[in-house]
Amino acid sequence: MTRTSVALVHHPCVDKNGEIYTTSITNLDVHDIARTSRTYGIGAFYLVTPVTAQQEMARAITSYWDGPGRERNPTRHDALELVRVVAALEDAVEAERALLGEKPVVVATSAKLGSRAPMSHPEARLRMDNASGVLLVFGTGYGLAPSVVDGADLLLEPLPGRDGYNHLSVRSAAAIIIDRLLG
Amino acid sequence: MTRTSVALVHHPCVDKNGEIYTTSITNLDVHDIARTSRTYGIGAFYLVTPVTAQQEMARAITSYWDGPGRERNPTRHDALELVRVVAALEDAVEAERALLGEKPVVVATSAKLGSRAPMSHPEARLRMDNASGVLLVFGTGYGLAPSVVDGADLLLEPLPGRDGYNHLSVRSAAAIIIDRLLG
Repeated sequence: MTRTSVALVHHPCVDKNGEIYTTSITNLDVHDIARTSRTYGIGAFYLVTPVTAQQEMARAITSYWDGPGRERNPTRHDALELVRVVAALEDAVEAERALLGEKPVVVATSAKLGSRAPMSHPEARLRMDNASGVLLVFGTGYGLAPSVVDGADLLLEPLPGRDGYNHLSVRSAAAIIIDRLLG
Repeated sequence: MTRTSVALVHHPCVDKNGEIYTTSITNLDVHDIARTSRTYGIGAFYLVTPVTAQQEMARAITSYWDGPGRERNPTRHDALELVRVVAALEDAVEAERALLGEKPVVVATSAKLGSRAPMSHPEARLRMDNASGVLLVFGTGYGLAPSVVDGADLLLEPLPGRDGYNHLSVRSAAAIIIDRLLG
């Protein structure tokens, strides 16, 4: 059984001009992607940010749902307990490697075609079936930095939008891609 | 070519005790489902609420993106121009009937199995191909009121969650279901 994990990267991302920058954590990204992760049996949901104040905020969110929020809404606790706050994507890869005993297949996602040839969702699904672990990586802002895309083991094809429209929220894109790969 | 539209219902919904109630409009539901709708070529996205103050708020959100927001982010305008604010689901059905010349097939969604037999996503996809118009209806809070589910032409099967976990956000559920039916 393949263990699949998810990472949501806030650095390094690109802004609208293609410059490297760092985005802020969005509370509803944490909730929505944690809920989707729990629905599809994902092992861990890594929130990646090097900003310590942001790391603390993320931990404040998740600790609420491990404390008072748990009684109020136990299903939200069940989702948010998947969250792991890490400083860099490499930390997520290392944490998964420690669990699996080998490096997970790192799968980058992008809303646009770039220089690297992408893999279709059915092909990726097949490749995942033969891996012991997979780390699915989503970007924020205007997407993952090229260094992340180039450093991944494979790049998933973008979701095709009508008339070339490719502006899904990362919450929706993650839901659709996770359903296509694991549903 | 089938015209597909989406309705997000804030009344009548059920609360955690199964009582009928009215939810508030959530800004990010409007943005995320509008962006998903635009991505999949959906004709209109109806926000259903009988509360006039909520209708005004929804119109304030969309008019921003038709005005100053349009210059700032044209792709967001392209998504939010699909939004239609209506007081009741029947108003959405009537608006679609007026466009189509016949009543759309009204498809209810639910996160749980109820008394009514649901249709699988592949079956629904086939049924939609043979319709001139389809209105996909999503609930908020703890789901659509039974009167909406019973009054629809068909009910879609719930998305199966691992270990019975069925607590996706409506933003994520709508993204996955729209992808399964139109992707």
